[in-house]
Amino acid sequence: MAILDVDKGYDAASNSALLEAFSGRRPERLPVWFMRQAGRSLPEYRAARAGHAMLDACLDPDLAAELTVQPVRRHQVDAAIFFSDIVVPLALAGVDVRIEPGVGPVFGAPVRTRAQVAALADTARLDDQRLAPITAGVSEAVRLLGGTPLIGFAGAPFTLAAYLVEGGPSRDHLAARRLMHTDPTAWALLMDVTSTLSAAFLRAQIAAGARAAQLFDSWVGSLSAADYRAHVQGASARVLTSVREAGVPSVHFGTGTGELLPALRDAGADVVGVDHRVPLDEANRRLGGAVPLQGNIDPALLAAPWPVLEAHVRDVVDRGRAAPAHVVNLGHGVPPDTDPDVLTHVVELVHSL
Amino acid sequence: MAILDVDKGYDAASNSALLEAFSGRRPERLPVWFMRQAGRSLPEYRAARAGHAMLDACLDPDLAAELTVQPVRRHQVDAAIFFSDIVVPLALAGVDVRIEPGVGPVFGAPVRTRAQVAALADTARLDDQRLAPITAGVSEAVRLLGGTPLIGFAGAPFTLAAYLVEGGPSRDHLAARRLMHTDPTAWALLMDVTSTLSAAFLRAQIAAGARAAQLFDSWVGSLSAADYRAHVQGASARVLTSVREAGVPSVHFGTGTGELLPALRDAGADVVGVDHRVPLDEANRRLGGAVPLQGNIDPALLAAPWPVLEAHVRDVVDRGRAAPAHVVNLGHGVPPDTDPDVLTHVVELVHSL
Repeated sequence: MAILDVDKGYDAASNSALLEAFSGRRPERLPVWFMRQAGRSLPEYRAARAGHAMLDACLDPDLAAELTVQPVRRHQVDAAIFFSDIVVPLALAGVDVRIEPGVGPVFGAPVRTRAQVAALADTARLDDQRLAPITAGVSEAVRLLGGTPLIGFAGAPFTLAAYLVEGGPSRDHLAARRLMHTDPTAWALLMDVTSTLSAAFLRAQIAAGARAAQLFDSWVGSLSAADYRAHVQGASARVLTSVREAGVPSVHFGTGTGELLPALRDAGADVVGVDHRVPLDEANRRLGGAVPLQGNIDPALLAAPWPVLEAHVRDVVDRGRAAPAHVVNLGHGVPPDTDPDVLTHVVELVHSL
Repeated sequence: MAILDVDKGYDAASNSALLEAFSGRRPERLPVWFMRQAGRSLPEYRAARAGHAMLDACLDPDLAAELTVQPVRRHQVDAAIFFSDIVVPLALAGVDVRIEPGVGPVFGAPVRTRAQVAALADTARLDDQRLAPITAGVSEAVRLLGGTPLIGFAGAPFTLAAYLVEGGPSRDHLAARRLMHTDPTAWALLMDVTSTLSAAFLRAQIAAGARAAQLFDSWVGSLSAADYRAHVQGASARVLTSVREAGVPSVHFGTGTGELLPALRDAGADVVGVDHRVPLDEANRRLGGAVPLQGNIDPALLAAPWPVLEAHVRDVVDRGRAAPAHVVNLGHGVPPDTDPDVLTHVVELVHSL
């Protein structure tokens, strides 16, 4: 099963550690990768991205594949995650959105009324042709990766909906949460749209060779558990069911989700990602000891002196042993100014444990 | 004890309901007020603030008093909170900070190195003279309020420190949390500085007539409970102890604090504020059934049709009955575009329950 890809200079023989852990078993080697590992922390990323706007880079198959593979070459992590952005499926589906450096996604017009939601539902479409740059990028990344598994990437229905309603980044997602309560019918239709786009985006990646899928609900921590279960869980479940039917395991992750961990599992995730706020032994307790976990090194510690970071990584790994399986990761994305050698060092440490 | 201030058009006879609840008893009338009730939701606020920059308004005693009292006049809430801003004590202490409309506080230079922290510790000072505009504003507000109690306002040491380190608003407070771990000595010194400023700011308000104090740790939800207890709790405890020694009850509040509720209580708060994410019966359970609670109407619901909002308010009040006492409030500040009549209506509803 393992393919040793000597030419690429990394050890693809570890290709199954991640998938074993995702399936609830404890592989010999503790798997590790980093959210946003393909990013500005790497000089080779900054060089390759120079002159390419974010959305253009996401839709350039060769460039997206190259950026996807870079951190595997450098850090010997146990997985790649497809280089993309939360709003890519929206852009491909015809939504007017651009990504402004230093700001994030900015939409031509927010979607706040029932009529605007209905218009979106009438027009937003993803088909094979629109998804072709994604399919090509994933195929090329999988080819370059050899045996190292690729994880598909997508934003979850709530976060996509919240971006559409807010029209850009926001703190409390108040406009989105208002729509949820002021017009639950419009909200439900919006979640239908975003779950359809999210599922299509992941299925295209799986069909092209992704061997797992991570559903990022970046903003879901702004919800109470009751609101999540009433207004969001069904839509996330549709996406996660679609992933399961495609035959690969799913990871569900958001930040500030201490209140939501059981609800995220109940949406149908095979693996639950945990941010830095809740220790993994406590997360495992909340999940009844039955769910593989991913996480949860505090990104703030990546800048700390090595003995401080090492003690933290060891603590995370120790607490993760309470769970059925553990894929080591950060509790959030790699900060752009992270020293990449520190990440490599963390991988070496984790693989030694 | 009650003073009926007929001229002002509000019922000051309710002056003790808030303080009774803060002391753990259940008053006859369920007390209610709203965080950021003195704000842009009120046309009289927008009229009075016109032409005054935020920091100028905070330091103009007559204007600050007028803005403080406006929501009591209009809504018949059971408390006023002194109109101010998180960064006011920093500005008074000599820190170079301005408040930009639509952005928030922006600092001349972030405080990120040990030398910068030491320089701040050497220069930041609050004395009676610097605090004179606050003392005068509180005195005037108390005079205008008659029997309605005034709550003193201050940002907590962590949030003040995080603003100083970040140099402005931020999402994850990564720079602040980095300093905490990369140089715990510098961090501790910074927390000494901010706790001294926060305590002096509150003591001045109490000396001028505030009958309670609320310590806002707006950003503390970015911390794990372990980090809070190791690096923050001691500084908050110094402020809360200072409030207690001044003879008034304290409320401690932050958003996203589901993981931190017992730690906030253990810092020495008499009352714990709860945001919209955790139901009050669950918050009460986490606090061992021994702490008066404040909160936690979801601000997103203020825009919902009245039957939806009413059902939510009734649910919040019902769940609050699990606690020893409950002061009804929002789970966060009043959104600026809130219809003020809705707030008045919520007060009437709460007072009828």
